Amino acid sequence: MKKILINIDSGENFSIYRNPIEEELIKDSDLINIACGFHSGDPDNLRETVKIIKKYGKIPGAHPSYPDLFGFGRRSMKLSYSEIENIIIYQLGALSGFLKVEGITLNHVKPHGALYNDSVKDEVVTEAIGRGVFLFDKNLKMIGLSLSKQVEIWKKMGLQVLNEVYIDRAYNDDGTLVSREKIGSVITDLNLIEERIKNLLKSKEIITISGNRIKLEIDTICLHSDTPNSLEILKILRRYL
Amino acid sequence: MKKILINIDSGENFSIYRNPIEEELIKDSDLINIACGFHSGDPDNLRETVKIIKKYGKIPGAHPSYPDLFGFGRRSMKLSYSEIENIIIYQLGALSGFLKVEGITLNHVKPHGALYNDSVKDEVVTEAIGRGVFLFDKNLKMIGLSLSKQVEIWKKMGLQVLNEVYIDRAYNDDGTLVSREKIGSVITDLNLIEERIKNLLKSKEIITISGNRIKLEIDTICLHSDTPNSLEILKILRRYL
Amino acid sequence: MKKILINIDSGENFSIYRNPIEEELIKDSDLINIACGFHSGDPDNLRETVKIIKKYGKIPGAHPSYPDLFGFGRRSMKLSYSEIENIIIYQLGALSGFLKVEGITLNHVKPHGALYNDSVKDEVVTEAIGRGVFLFDKNLKMIGLSLSKQVEIWKKMGLQVLNEVYIDRAYNDDGTLVSREKIGSVITDLNLIEERIKNLLKSKEIITISGNRIKLEIDTICLHSDTPNSLEILKILRRYL
Amino acid sequence: MKKILINIDSGENFSIYRNPIEEELIKDSDLINIACGFHSGDPDNLRETVKIIKKYGKIPGAHPSYPDLFGFGRRSMKLSYSEIENIIIYQLGALSGFLKVEGITLNHVKPHGALYNDSVKDEVVTEAIGRGVFLFDKNLKMIGLSLSKQVEIWKKMGLQVLNEVYIDRAYNDDGTLVSREKIGSVITDLNLIEERIKNLLKSKEIITISGNRIKLEIDTICLHSDTPNSLEILKILRRYL
Repeated sequence: MKKILINIDSGENFSIYRNPIEEELIKDSDLINIACGFHSGDPDNLRETVKIIKKYGKIPGAHPSYPDLFGFGRRSMKLSYSEIENIIIYQLGALSGFLKVEGITLNHVKPHGALYNDSVKDEVVTEAIGRGVFLFDKNLKMIGLSLSKQVEIWKKMGLQVLNEVYIDRAYNDDGTLVSREKIGSVITDLNLIEERIKNLLKSKEIITISGNRIKLEIDTICLHSDTPNSLEILKILRRYL
Repeated sequence: MKKILINIDSGENFSIYRNPIEEELIKDSDLINIACGFHSGDPDNLRETVKIIKKYGKIPGAHPSYPDLFGFGRRSMKLSYSEIENIIIYQLGALSGFLKVEGITLNHVKPHGALYNDSVKDEVVTEAIGRGVFLFDKNLKMIGLSLSKQVEIWKKMGLQVLNEVYIDRAYNDDGTLVSREKIGSVITDLNLIEERIKNLLKSKEIITISGNRIKLEIDTICLHSDTPNSLEILKILRRYL
Repeated sequence: MKKILINIDSGENFSIYRNPIEEELIKDSDLINIACGFHSGDPDNLRETVKIIKKYGKIPGAHPSYPDLFGFGRRSMKLSYSEIENIIIYQLGALSGFLKVEGITLNHVKPHGALYNDSVKDEVVTEAIGRGVFLFDKNLKMIGLSLSKQVEIWKKMGLQVLNEVYIDRAYNDDGTLVSREKIGSVITDLNLIEERIKNLLKSKEIITISGNRIKLEIDTICLHSDTPNSLEILKILRRYL
Repeated sequence: MKKILINIDSGENFSIYRNPIEEELIKDSDLINIACGFHSGDPDNLRETVKIIKKYGKIPGAHPSYPDLFGFGRRSMKLSYSEIENIIIYQLGALSGFLKVEGITLNHVKPHGALYNDSVKDEVVTEAIGRGVFLFDKNLKMIGLSLSKQVEIWKKMGLQVLNEVYIDRAYNDDGTLVSREKIGSVITDLNLIEERIKNLLKSKEIITISGNRIKLEIDTICLHSDTPNSLEILKILRRYL
């Protein structure tokens, strides 16, 4: 069976602000999605994060965002196709500078926050992201929501895509994530998380918020670095993966 | 005799704001120093500028700055050695993204505004800039003030350096530029400019603000794109170069 | 008959970038909507603009925007009700600082760009803007699109509203503006503009892009300071108003 | 004897980043210096902080900074006199908007980080800060380093000044603070802190890093909200004040 990789968002230190468990999270994950400065991650913190990723031999990816420091990139913005292309190229380039300095290579791209969510809902956004990535480097892999149109579109554009499943977020019956604004959207109960992992490994199934089962493709499981208990969740994941 | 190249600052469009003569200036220059987003140049304008440079087959360079959008990078900031390294790496990377997309390669680096001026006066700043560039790509050329310590330090670090002379700025006797705040610092008189060019080509000499002659090394002549009459100055330069 | 006032957007100088006709536009207008730093207008340029407004005895208003310097506030952002309230309060406060220094008082508020457009379409946005303004100072007047829901909602909230008509923008039959992306959306033909003014003064009617006539309420006519020929349009307006 | 007030820096939440003990620190302090958006404190967090200050009946002040989000305002910038005036006016205005909404009034101003430090060393900076405050509201109080030129200059300009002493920072013999870059500059030992408080209350004296005693004026004691143990230090302070 193909190895399922754990991906986490990282590089989200900014100014004096730190995620105190960032290094521990990186140490136990596989694919590290690094903020590129538009929602978090100033140059100094980017450099630092890239060094930690290199130290542990992890796989670096870009985590580009809408330009929205106040809102941590969690607020949708209506950008044109070319504006999306250009924020992708700028951020991939900026991050690649630090990777180059450390002698490691960009592996994948996962859009951040509202850019990711808009992409799940809007094919034009998905295509514009994919086009920006393709123009920058067509050999980069995308991380996309398992079974979504997003994955399909990026594949059609000639990009490799990793299907991702969220272990700490509730699912709707149509395979989309339950909005963060709704109660129950973020799952922190460790027993429930363990149950979900076992189900996924056994049958590739996840139980939705309404109690139904849906079958997913899984190349990677996403763990949010700001979920409470994220370190505990990570340890459970590592026991099974 | 070695060809003297004309270098101009470019990519300084931002948001809705345009330099209406940018394309004409690029068309008649050789080395184009492109803003990277920290003093000007958002992603959309960066992409546009890079396309114009490619269209005319000009040589692209980076024009990194302190992070100072309000002040157009013209205000000195006291950054640490590593903070300077990191803003250099970030900006070189971001610009390189757009160059990569157009299939052209970064040739040189010229620090912008206060970062350039601080570097002329402060060896630590010069070294930190050079170190950032060297880590990113040790084959990049630097543009530095002719005869200054800057040039010397960057050479010692193993970087190639182009000696630049300013055709539209007055010189002090020690070879430094007269501060922009002083009267007579910016030269716009076309006859005087032509006289300066002739002197430079004949004897590598420039007449300082106090009337003395100093001998300079010249690889490139800088023309400020925001000097009034810059297009006329450029035409005169082109007649001689 | 009640005097119809001319309102223009202003304070949209940023960093080294200038609108060369800003002072002339202010001189011949009545209500001046001043950028507050989120789409344009850094502190130095804000101070300068407020001084010019005082010099000519014009009436100062705030022109708050989404936080979007790259896009000049012309890109819609999905903010929550309280996030909109808070960007309004922050910007009104910041501008009021400069007005206080010059001893003049804030008169009105007109949302800028995408925030204005979103408000025309979305009642929640309109209410959140109105609530921010009301909390800051319930005696401020709003400038809103004549006949729109916007005007109605703000009135219901207890705010005074000035109905505005655009002289340089085409109208749809439902009284909304034709999107800037469509051909014919911006009107620069001086004869046509003069015709529109005459019609408005005679019968309060405007001819829409499809040739129909609609009747509008008019307290103020908006002239965009970045419309080509804006100074000529302003002179025509002044002849009639 | 005159009551000595405790002042803390606050409002330094930004985007998703929180100081988890902010509310507790506010609850036990007197004068609260609130970030205004240039080094931290976006509009949403500003609103929140102002509400907490009102809830506990604390005294609000402004904590304006150089425009430096990446560096948390801890990096010196070379601004002109009028540029300093204008960043002061902008930030005081922005904060005042939120105070106005809550019906409370700005009491004092304490420059943040590098702006504070530059002011201690450079009279022109001090004067420009004072001038910006004076233009905005001449009845505002300044918080300045006890015995420094800063205090003297602001007084001469007609502003009221509170002399502040740092309880968690080491002093040089000349009454300036030991630079944060030096070992021993930040004091976290609770016994030592208690000793310093007792000395201050008894004799207005502090023991410098070289072991000498200097006598200070004290209107307020500053506690850094990001010093480790800041809550414990605050409790000790409260026992004596």
